[in-house]
Formats: sequence, C-alpha cells, structure tokens
Amino acid sequence: MLSLEEILQQIQPVSLDSGVQAQARMDSQTKPPASLGRLEEIVRRLSAIHGDKPVRVRKKSVYVFAADHGVVQEGVSAYPAEVTAQMVLNFLNGGAAINCLARHVGADVKIVDIGTHHDFKNIEGLIHRKIAGGTQNMARTTAMSIEQARTSIQTGIELAYEAVDAGYDLLAVGEMGIGNTTPATALMCVYGSVNPADIIGRGTGVDDDGLKRKINAIETALQLHKPKPDDPLNTLAQIGGFEIGAMAGFIIGSAERRIPCIIDGLISGAGAVLAMQFQPLIRDYIFASHRSCEVGHETFFKLSGQTPLFDLDLRLGEGTGAVLAMQLIEGAVKIYNEMATFDSAGISGKNQDPVKTDSP
Amino acid sequence: MLSLEEILQQIQPVSLDSGVQAQARMDSQTKPPASLGRLEEIVRRLSAIHGDKPVRVRKKSVYVFAADHGVVQEGVSAYPAEVTAQMVLNFLNGGAAINCLARHVGADVKIVDIGTHHDFKNIEGLIHRKIAGGTQNMARTTAMSIEQARTSIQTGIELAYEAVDAGYDLLAVGEMGIGNTTPATALMCVYGSVNPADIIGRGTGVDDDGLKRKINAIETALQLHKPKPDDPLNTLAQIGGFEIGAMAGFIIGSAERRIPCIIDGLISGAGAVLAMQFQPLIRDYIFASHRSCEVGHETFFKLSGQTPLFDLDLRLGEGTGAVLAMQLIEGAVKIYNEMATFDSAGISGKNQDPVKTDSP
Repeated sequence: MLSLEEILQQIQPVSLDSGVQAQARMDSQTKPPASLGRLEEIVRRLSAIHGDKPVRVRKKSVYVFAADHGVVQEGVSAYPAEVTAQMVLNFLNGGAAINCLARHVGADVKIVDIGTHHDFKNIEGLIHRKIAGGTQNMARTTAMSIEQARTSIQTGIELAYEAVDAGYDLLAVGEMGIGNTTPATALMCVYGSVNPADIIGRGTGVDDDGLKRKINAIETALQLHKPKPDDPLNTLAQIGGFEIGAMAGFIIGSAERRIPCIIDGLISGAGAVLAMQFQPLIRDYIFASHRSCEVGHETFFKLSGQTPLFDLDLRLGEGTGAVLAMQLIEGAVKIYNEMATFDSAGISGKNQDPVKTDSP
Repeated sequence: MLSLEEILQQIQPVSLDSGVQAQARMDSQTKPPASLGRLEEIVRRLSAIHGDKPVRVRKKSVYVFAADHGVVQEGVSAYPAEVTAQMVLNFLNGGAAINCLARHVGADVKIVDIGTHHDFKNIEGLIHRKIAGGTQNMARTTAMSIEQARTSIQTGIELAYEAVDAGYDLLAVGEMGIGNTTPATALMCVYGSVNPADIIGRGTGVDDDGLKRKINAIETALQLHKPKPDDPLNTLAQIGGFEIGAMAGFIIGSAERRIPCIIDGLISGAGAVLAMQFQPLIRDYIFASHRSCEVGHETFFKLSGQTPLFDLDLRLGEGTGAVLAMQLIEGAVKIYNEMATFDSAGISGKNQDPVKTDSP
C-alpha cells in the first residue's frame, strides 16, 4: 500500500460538471424544478463524486469500529468499560440497534475490533485489527504513540479499500467505545477553537458530577499536550482514540476511491474532522446524516460546510443515524434513475414557458 | 355506513398506558435510555394508537387523491390545469416521484380520481370516485355544495376502511391537483388566523405576478364567504377542494379504525386540520412527516402539536414526504421488536445503578 501522504495526494476534487449534468436531468423530470429539495442536492453531490460513472447504489455497508479508552479512569462515563466488549458480542449476535436498522435498510454490518480491552480470541464475524487493548489515559499521558496513530489510520484506509473492492458503493461509519465522547469532544475543542465546558455532553448519560470530571479530564489533557490543529496525526496520538483514527482512515480511503461515506454522530464526526484536516477535498465525499444531541457535533457541520439531513435527537452512535440516512440517499437515487421526464410522459410544461411547451 | 357524526363520535382516545409500557420495554433494551430520541417517540405513539395489539408494520400504502380547482381561472398556478390528469396517467404508469419512492419503501400506491376535469373512462388501476369535474372558483362562488363536501369526506372514510380491511396498517395521504395550494392556504388562513400575504407560497413555482393573483384570490374568497372555523363542513364547501375533503375523511376513517396515517405537505396538512376540527382526538392518530417549503404548513404543526420528522425543502406533494417517513417509522418499529435487552444480551447496566446491576 502507498503511504498515507501518497494516498492523501491522490484524492481528486469531485466533478462539478457531473453534478450540473445531473441537475439538468432532474429538471427534465416530472416535477416542478427543485421541488425535491435536498433529495436533489444528494443526487448532485453523488453525481459529482461518481464523475463519469452512473449514480446508483448497489451494495451498502456500515463499518462499526470498537475501541476502549484509558480516560475512563477519570470517571467520564456512565457505563463500565466492559460494556464495549459486551456490545461487540451483541453486534455479532445481531441484537443491537445498528443490526436492526441495517437489516431494515438492507445494509451489511461489519464489526472491527480496532482496540478493545477484551480478548475475543478467533471469534467469527469480527474483523480482528486490534492495535492495543485500549488507549492510555490522555489526562496523564499521550493516548497512543505516533506509530499507533498512523496504524489506526492506515487500517481504516485498508478496510475502505477492501469494502470498495467487495462492491460496496455506499459506506457508513459508526463506533462503539465506552468513554469515547471524551476524546471526540477534546478533538472538537481543538478543531472548533471552543472550550470543553461550552460543548460538553452527557454521552451515554453521565450525571452532573461525571460531567464535571469529563470537562476536567479534557481540560487537563489539552493543557498537558497543547495539540496543534495543523498536525492531525500528532493530535490523534495525544487525545484521540483508535476507532477515531480508523474512521478517519476509512473516510480517507473511501474518498480516494471516490465512494461516498456517511458520517454518524459526534465520534465519527471527530474522525471526519481529522480526515478533512489531512485533506480538505474530503468534505465533498462525505455525507452528514443527523444532528446528534452532543453539541460538539456542530464543529463537524461547520468544518464540512454541511447541514445534517435530519435531527431526531439521536445519541446512540453505532452508525444508527448514518444507516437511516442511507434510506434517504437511496430513495433520492431511485427517483433520479426511475422517474419519467416531461417528454416521456407527455406532460405539459409551465405556463408561458416556451422552452417546455413549444419544444419538439 | 354510519353517518359522519356517528363515526366522529366512535373515535377513541389513544391508550397512554400502552405508550408507557412500550417505553419501559425500550428502556430495557441495549442502549442508553432515550438515546434513540424521536425513534422512541414514534414507538410510544404507535403503541398508544394500537393499544393492546402488537406494534408492527406489515403492509403500507399511500393514497393519492387527485382533483381540479375552479380557482385556477384566477391565474394562481404556474402549470396548466391539464397537468392534473396528465400526472394521474404518470402515476398509473409508475413514472412519478411517488411511485419511485413507494417502490423504494415497499408501499403500495393507490390513485383516486376524486374530482378531476378529465374523463378517464374505465381506465384500469384508478380508483374512480369522481364527485365532479373540478370545484367551482371559490373567488366567485362556493367551491362545492355542502352535499359534495359531505360526499368527499365520506368517500375518504370509505377508502380508509377498505384499506384497513385489506390489511394496511400504516397509511399515508398525498395529492395531485393543479391550483390546490390556493384552497389549502385559504384553509390555513382560517384555522391559523393569519393573512394570506403572510403565509402565501409559490406552489409549483408561480412568478411574482402569479403570487399577487394568488393572494388576491384567497382574500377575495375569504371576504366573500367569511368561513366559520367551527363549521368545518361548510368551510370545506366554501373554500376547499375535493382532494382536501377526501383526505380529511381518510384521516378520520383511519383514526376510527386505530390505524396511523402519515401527513405529507401543505395540502394534506389542510386535510388534517379539517379532520382535527371535526374531532380533536385525531391529532394522536396522525404523524407529521416533513416540513414543507410552504409557510402555511406551520398551521398544521401548530394545531397538531407535532414537530415534523425531517425538513428536506420538499414541495412536490404526491405523498412523497409521507412515504419517506414510512421508512423512519418502520425502522423504529423494527428496533423495538428485534433489539436485545440488557438481560438477554448479558450487558452491564449503568455504573452505580442497583436496579440494573443487581436485578435477577
């Protein structure tokens, strides 16, 4: 595989011409111009991503990256760390929310152990890519080494390549990791130039005391490491998580292969923010899905220039919001590919519109 | 069939107890409490509607009511009136946006001629329930007679009953009718106590002069008829449309049978507002889907007490937004029915939470 730097350089701008052509086709279809609103925006963007290739969705998958976090020692989560591994088993058994929703939309679920505490042995169905048994506590030391940070990103890229080679043409990222809203919020503080207390959220539902500990852990980590935003690899190593690095890599890899990737909530948003910091062109290859309850999520919307497709007060993660967005995206694509045109259906155009009413 | 008044009296309050029981079950499932946000609200509401019966979605359908409007004589639409019938043929051929989206979500599409100009003869696939060849021009006379208004509502109720008898357990309403944002906006003015100029929209895309004509037509009609909000049947006759009355009836009929009905944009919103005026309990049986570009739609949200599930700048009608909401509702139901519980998956509960960690 090429180096991270080489891969980043290979990422191409999307084709705005293809987007314009797609809009022209939509304007000939049997509806008032622009009346499908953001569904048309979705098709324009997909067309720009795919370039010369047809806009279609044949095979969908969500990659769920699981990891543990040393910072849970600071008492930042409402749940014990063992829940990360227990939920991985729940995913493998098909019993979690993401499994139910993925079945609903016809997407495959891939579970990646990128750095949990637990030893899953050779358990079937799990993608075994453990970098270490959880990060170190970022409030005391760097979360991971630079080498581990690079490995997490490269692993994500490799998995994106494998997904694209397997025929997936609509991808999504999700995650599971007790404590991971803490590093994600820390990253949003760095990239949004905001203070922890201003964007802190309750994650899985931490109480008021836990919230104070969470703010304190992030403030301590930021003071200790003084992360430089323009050095995303080092920032990831200082205050990140293995799943955040792997999602950043997955987003980079799918963009390099010109396949759209849907972003879920706060933590995958932090991965996307890192990916865009590595290569700003990536913002045109990703889709924001939903607006999380976690305020820190806003930094992702600001930096990506995107508005979420919906706002359902979700705060579960796992990729649940991203998979719900697959339905909308696929619906928009089906309309684009299947809808009649004014000509084909013999429908009159607008009043006083010589282009439509007098055209051959 | 019973009279309209008898049917309205038979509508029962939803079962709040069932909603509470559903929430208790969701709180035992493998996710932080309330972390699925509005998906949990959907399940609570469905459970309250179904009462003792299981919450599930087996068969879905959208009913698209087509009608013409005498008020197009005032130059209120960007498209000629013949487009109503042309679009009905497009629906029957499966070429319109609603067909593509319904195929996508696995819903059946039923097209009802409730009052178009066109003579479709015995054309197959169309539900022939024409009341008249379009309404009269409400800016000059009453849009329809009281008898026609009653027939439109009763037809809607009958069709809802047929749908429920055929096994549909998730219904949606949509419409097609050149000019129909004008009567719908007029109704929203009456029920929202607002002026036409404050909520007027461009419908299919009328220009500035057309917009003035549209405001003028509504103001003229409101001055001419002075509709009384507490007399919805007469108000429908004065300034309504056949599809609006039929949708109101369909909403009434599905509520009476305790089957949820999803509302689309401005025009079906006007139908829902009428239905709620007939029987306020109906608000608990309907689901708002999306927020239309048409400002008048707000009156529906205000009177139903609902927040739309998404806002995608749609302004097409046909039931397109309602059908997109079917996906979300069905996804919420699948999570509810298929997701593991903390106990069944052997997952630890919250830290310091004796109820979860010590329960048998």
